[in-house]
Amino acid sequence: MTAKAVDDVAPAVPELETIVSLAKRRGFVYPSSDIYGGINAVWDYGPLGVELKNNVKRAWWKAMVQERDDIVGLDAGILMHPQVWITSGHVGSFSDPLVECQTDHRRFRLDELPGAENLTATDIRDPTIVQRLGLTCPVDGGPLSAPRRFNLMFKTFMGPVEDDAAVIYLRPETAQGSYVNFKNVQQSSRKKLPFGIAQIGKSFRNEISPGNFVFRMREFEQMEMQYFVRPDDAARIFEEWLPRRWDWYTHYGVAPARLRFREHAPDELAHYAKKAIDVEYRFPFGWKELEGIHNRGDFDLSRHQAESGANLEYFDPATEEHFIPWIVETAGGPDRAAFTFLIDSYREEDVRGETRVSLALHPDLAPYKVAVLPLLKKRPEIVELCHRLLKDLKQDLMAVYDDTAAIGKLYRRQDEIGTPWCVTVDVDSLEDLAATIRDRDSMTQERVPIEGVKRAILDRMAAARA
Amino acid sequence: MTAKAVDDVAPAVPELETIVSLAKRRGFVYPSSDIYGGINAVWDYGPLGVELKNNVKRAWWKAMVQERDDIVGLDAGILMHPQVWITSGHVGSFSDPLVECQTDHRRFRLDELPGAENLTATDIRDPTIVQRLGLTCPVDGGPLSAPRRFNLMFKTFMGPVEDDAAVIYLRPETAQGSYVNFKNVQQSSRKKLPFGIAQIGKSFRNEISPGNFVFRMREFEQMEMQYFVRPDDAARIFEEWLPRRWDWYTHYGVAPARLRFREHAPDELAHYAKKAIDVEYRFPFGWKELEGIHNRGDFDLSRHQAESGANLEYFDPATEEHFIPWIVETAGGPDRAAFTFLIDSYREEDVRGETRVSLALHPDLAPYKVAVLPLLKKRPEIVELCHRLLKDLKQDLMAVYDDTAAIGKLYRRQDEIGTPWCVTVDVDSLEDLAATIRDRDSMTQERVPIEGVKRAILDRMAAARA
Repeated sequence: MTAKAVDDVAPAVPELETIVSLAKRRGFVYPSSDIYGGINAVWDYGPLGVELKNNVKRAWWKAMVQERDDIVGLDAGILMHPQVWITSGHVGSFSDPLVECQTDHRRFRLDELPGAENLTATDIRDPTIVQRLGLTCPVDGGPLSAPRRFNLMFKTFMGPVEDDAAVIYLRPETAQGSYVNFKNVQQSSRKKLPFGIAQIGKSFRNEISPGNFVFRMREFEQMEMQYFVRPDDAARIFEEWLPRRWDWYTHYGVAPARLRFREHAPDELAHYAKKAIDVEYRFPFGWKELEGIHNRGDFDLSRHQAESGANLEYFDPATEEHFIPWIVETAGGPDRAAFTFLIDSYREEDVRGETRVSLALHPDLAPYKVAVLPLLKKRPEIVELCHRLLKDLKQDLMAVYDDTAAIGKLYRRQDEIGTPWCVTVDVDSLEDLAATIRDRDSMTQERVPIEGVKRAILDRMAAARA
Repeated sequence: MTAKAVDDVAPAVPELETIVSLAKRRGFVYPSSDIYGGINAVWDYGPLGVELKNNVKRAWWKAMVQERDDIVGLDAGILMHPQVWITSGHVGSFSDPLVECQTDHRRFRLDELPGAENLTATDIRDPTIVQRLGLTCPVDGGPLSAPRRFNLMFKTFMGPVEDDAAVIYLRPETAQGSYVNFKNVQQSSRKKLPFGIAQIGKSFRNEISPGNFVFRMREFEQMEMQYFVRPDDAARIFEEWLPRRWDWYTHYGVAPARLRFREHAPDELAHYAKKAIDVEYRFPFGWKELEGIHNRGDFDLSRHQAESGANLEYFDPATEEHFIPWIVETAGGPDRAAFTFLIDSYREEDVRGETRVSLALHPDLAPYKVAVLPLLKKRPEIVELCHRLLKDLKQDLMAVYDDTAAIGKLYRRQDEIGTPWCVTVDVDSLEDLAATIRDRDSMTQERVPIEGVKRAILDRMAAARA
């Protein structure tokens, strides 16, 4: 297996380049605006990628909304009142430290310069840091400016005139939509504490140095859940969400050995956070954040109450108390999760002297659940039987037909995109009205009556869920 | 039934205000950034709205991608290379005619001024039109400027410096993402003509005068499908899509009497279009476009080929020809579709002297498929039975529990949000282990063993689909 040893403890994962190449070739992810030379840090999801990503979102929604009594969904706009981002602190402090080379005017993120990778948050705020560490331009060696804060929010202008009054921002996070709608949601859904608001949606950050494929993009999607709790319950509830979110990834197949928790050090904590623990994954480029779990205290609702004048207190009918709820947040994203599932499910193995590549994706995540393959495409009765079966399957499942190669190659194509089952229709099928279901991972085959194929696939999917 | 007679031919629909009020009260749609006084032309989807809208998107994806062999999905970025919008003609001509009052500097869209509602496209391009019609400011009667073109694209700046080189746009349509990815998709999915690319995603238009609730927003979502065809097939295939898209709306419950086709007049056609026919719905504010079907000819791919230098021709292995495919587009959106389903499903009827409000939503679209209601919430055995049933249902369905009122009121609450079935657990249930399934539309009740409730609901959903 081609692999890069980033860390001796965790098992190997494929090279980033292996995944990027598979993703583009098979239609998971393409560079955006490819024919115009691309646009930095935006990627487009192709036919298989959009299915994978939709499946990831559906799996999250199922675990976070559908199966629970205490969490409801929300889909707030990307464009919000600009005061939201002043209140939240984003206008003032959602920024990265930018340094500029005085000679060639190239710009860099301070904490990504060679020699500055391990700076503490305190170091980064130090205006003399460039001199203190003797940092120079990594391209031409020229002198660098002192760091200045570069705000990561994209701004635009709403309404027919470009003036300051109309400046608005593309949201850098979905969370604020849940905070400003706290009262609307609580009242219309009649929820009592503790309860949560879940959102999936696009956010935008004008990153100085995006990269690592879909890991850090300027346009990306989030899956965030804000859980509103009594202040004295927050610490306990925070701890409860840690294994829940870990288990969600492992349920869908991520190897526990490639996951770890990492708590933020005090000087690393965001301004709103009382405590923060990341679920990290061992990406091909090292351990990185997959999802963050945050105890945000009463920061968000208190600030919004103070700045908007709206009463955001919760009235507890049991204790007759009025108070500002605390918030425990789980903050992940379908891009990063889908990327993780792609990497983690990648397999290479030797089968009769050839390398078989497969994606051992959980059936709920796989773009196609089943492929229908004719053993002899020249026999019209076989092709017709395939199409009848396909039509039946497609009423309930993402299914695909392929007859453009010999069966061995057709299997490999489906393995490589993670299709859990292939159904092969052969000459015998015309007699016994049965077909062969072949399993992606075990490569075992089972003969099943054609009229029972859909039931068999649905049963196998249900079994994978249990 | 409260209704406004917009047109004598079509049956009455509820007042807009009735829908807006229900939507906010029950958590379908809230004004964005409500606690800060709102932001014009952006709306947030609440717990029920996000389910309805997701169901609409899923129903469209099922009909357009899952059930078909010839259409695949795509999810391109909102941010694209700026050249895309120059090539497409949006930078040059995606604009509305703006006039400004010389006295109070208020701005209006020319064709929405009193006395200018029925202007032709030629009139709108006439620089003397204001004088010719004697138009004045509808607020203070002051003189109006000649119309100038106001571009509807939102622009922003990518990268760490705000200069012209970094100006990019928020896409005003998803379609261009399908055009620039045509070759990537065609090659990685090995499709032959005719085939289509379907996309669902946010688009942004800086409308001069948005309005009518979620009908015209500055941030909105599209469901667009681009169907690539041989040039000589385009006219026929265009005609085939008309009934297909009409039937999709009626399958999900829209009254055919409130739908009509309207063909664009020659001077109304967009610059790219050879022919355009809208599916219109009779909204409370009149007949308006619900979806557009367009024959775009080879405009899009020819332009992108010329401007990008990429070869976007299709090679037909059967005829050995190389040519630029023509495009037939179906362009709708989940906001407008969800809004239509809300309006069209709204019912008021007299039941024993009281007004019963219900949403007769198709079960696939209803936010909750089933509500579990205890007849006596003071009996813990009944409540426990309810929760066991609820947990079972929630593995497969959106289900909800409510015990905060008497049964009559609980039914009305579910009727008003469109829940097709209520399951009532009563004292007898403790003995016979059965529950009552009550139908939203007929209000008939059926006694079913509790262990068979989920199967019964799933069967009824499948029946509604057939």
